[in-house]
Amino acid sequence: MKSRAAVAFEAGKPLEIVEVDLEGPREGEVLVEIKATGICHTDEFTRSGADPEGIFPAILGHEGAGVVADVGTGVRSLKKGDHVIPLYTPECRECEYCLNPKTNLCQAIRSTQGQGLMPDGSSRFSIDGKPVFHYMGTSTFSNFTVLPEIAVAKIHRDAPFDKVCYIGCGVTTGIGVVINTAKAEPGCRGVVFGLGGIGLNVIQGLRLIGASQIVGVDLNNDKKEWGERFGMTHFVNPSEVDGDLVAHLVELTGGGADYSFECIGNVKVMRQALECAHKGWGQSIIIGVAGAGQEISTRPFQLVTGRSWRGTAFGGARGRTDVPKIVDWYMDGKIEIDPMITHKLSLDRINEGFDLMHEGKSIRAVVEY
Amino acid sequence: MKSRAAVAFEAGKPLEIVEVDLEGPREGEVLVEIKATGICHTDEFTRSGADPEGIFPAILGHEGAGVVADVGTGVRSLKKGDHVIPLYTPECRECEYCLNPKTNLCQAIRSTQGQGLMPDGSSRFSIDGKPVFHYMGTSTFSNFTVLPEIAVAKIHRDAPFDKVCYIGCGVTTGIGVVINTAKAEPGCRGVVFGLGGIGLNVIQGLRLIGASQIVGVDLNNDKKEWGERFGMTHFVNPSEVDGDLVAHLVELTGGGADYSFECIGNVKVMRQALECAHKGWGQSIIIGVAGAGQEISTRPFQLVTGRSWRGTAFGGARGRTDVPKIVDWYMDGKIEIDPMITHKLSLDRINEGFDLMHEGKSIRAVVEY
Repeated sequence: MKSRAAVAFEAGKPLEIVEVDLEGPREGEVLVEIKATGICHTDEFTRSGADPEGIFPAILGHEGAGVVADVGTGVRSLKKGDHVIPLYTPECRECEYCLNPKTNLCQAIRSTQGQGLMPDGSSRFSIDGKPVFHYMGTSTFSNFTVLPEIAVAKIHRDAPFDKVCYIGCGVTTGIGVVINTAKAEPGCRGVVFGLGGIGLNVIQGLRLIGASQIVGVDLNNDKKEWGERFGMTHFVNPSEVDGDLVAHLVELTGGGADYSFECIGNVKVMRQALECAHKGWGQSIIIGVAGAGQEISTRPFQLVTGRSWRGTAFGGARGRTDVPKIVDWYMDGKIEIDPMITHKLSLDRINEGFDLMHEGKSIRAVVEY
Repeated sequence: MKSRAAVAFEAGKPLEIVEVDLEGPREGEVLVEIKATGICHTDEFTRSGADPEGIFPAILGHEGAGVVADVGTGVRSLKKGDHVIPLYTPECRECEYCLNPKTNLCQAIRSTQGQGLMPDGSSRFSIDGKPVFHYMGTSTFSNFTVLPEIAVAKIHRDAPFDKVCYIGCGVTTGIGVVINTAKAEPGCRGVVFGLGGIGLNVIQGLRLIGASQIVGVDLNNDKKEWGERFGMTHFVNPSEVDGDLVAHLVELTGGGADYSFECIGNVKVMRQALECAHKGWGQSIIIGVAGAGQEISTRPFQLVTGRSWRGTAFGGARGRTDVPKIVDWYMDGKIEIDPMITHKLSLDRINEGFDLMHEGKSIRAVVEY
């Protein structure tokens, strides 16, 4: 079959809207018609060429929602017509990782996914007979995409695609890190570095679990209003702090953050996030993706006196289990998404979505097919 | 009163055995006759001058056991004749830290303890009317010492002082890190870097909780037999590994350590310890004390893929609560101490104990009064 798609032919170049050939689902695979997809910094990380593991040509996109259009043989958990969210972190429920309650990093299809291929080692996408690579196992910048069954979460039928597509990455990462990774408790104090599409969701995650103090840190004062909208209680602009930012945050939080979150990908900020965590028990969790080869550092005394330095991917969520729950929370009004979808575009304007992100004008731009 | 003591008059100089003046216990304080004290690397860290916070003249020593000789007014939990272990990490059971189950770092007397003083800001030790500083709140290199009530653990009356003094630091740190900090579970795989007085106790802690694999890492092949004696299942000498140590350890443990422990104080080893931890859930815990100003570093990807970097002091133990239990475990044969006490000395030979430690000849040298 044919599908319209935004293809990244080369690192650093704009995406091109073309028609690609798409082979139907093989055994254990599902064909999904993508109805909407968010544009995320991780897509840009790869598109720009900064991702050392980026491969081209590829169809990017990993934050989608849609409808099952067809299923391959052996698929039992999904059927045509199911509403779904593609998962870049699958959940096979059989591997050593899925069976260990301490992690969500299912390894069942990791190596082929990293190579831009389906689990059988081939691509379903091609142009003029030449393969085009998948991306993060999802490729939601194509109107139709093929996914392994274990990488698809079935969701509420009434959920609006143009909103819940954001649960495919940003919302789950931000809320999940609070619930699954930090396991933050009511009354805690949190500090969130970077109030973009992830940071704002960390803030609403902290609000959801009943944090008593939610400090947002961003160089852009426009983010104050955004943070407050989702539960932030204190805003700090580092450029307006006299003296040391860490000391300021420790004082503001009455001794340090119970939980701090780095949502930027800046290794210097990662250190500040660790060091503003409370002595004795503060946890600092890295969410942002740093540039290739960059390193974090600190004095070991920071850890010996009780701070923990941790990280998370996909908010510690097990996609098939947790994503449907987060969709339900949205449908029940427990969490907000609508105000964060600041821009909607058609596929042929997808590059404008990247521009908006660069310019800091969008929280989330969503492409609707 | 007078007390014989080994005094550190100056950084880098041997201790001098002299008679010091000791004022009796004030309100909330206890006079303890020390019967035995271990010599630990931390004493040497300060004696040598490497400790940037070291102050002189001081009476070092923090790994003792003895008998209460007198109590000050207001002391209710202890009486003359009680057998006790001094605690360099006190347990007031009233401060924000003691009331938080996530930490053992009681802060009740931290600032005065760090200044070498009793909680009222003065020293009980003097020579010719000039004050001599306390050390770590314990100063067990004096035959008699004064301690705050909250820094004294009451122990089993029949426990031999020359063995259980080691519970005042090394044993509790090593066993405690496994039980309190890592909360390691039966069947886990542990890797222990540095098989000295702490590392061997981490090994017997892992044996105690039923670890399935206990890997010891040390440059000294003589430590193989020592490790095996306390439960080590595999020994690795990094100088005999072809290629990368981390890759070797990951392979040996079938994917990485569930828990790794750095018991040396070497920031490069700390990185290796983190990076040999299992993707998804491995925890690496720093126990060793690094040199002043040294930093640890790694790529944030190590954390984002599920490893945690942590640290511990006094094995996460709450001294008044946990130290008596560990003494009981020793009395019941659950843990071993006797073979680790490799040397016993009288106070006037205490400097020989430091020499033995330097030469790697002792696991623990103990001074008996």
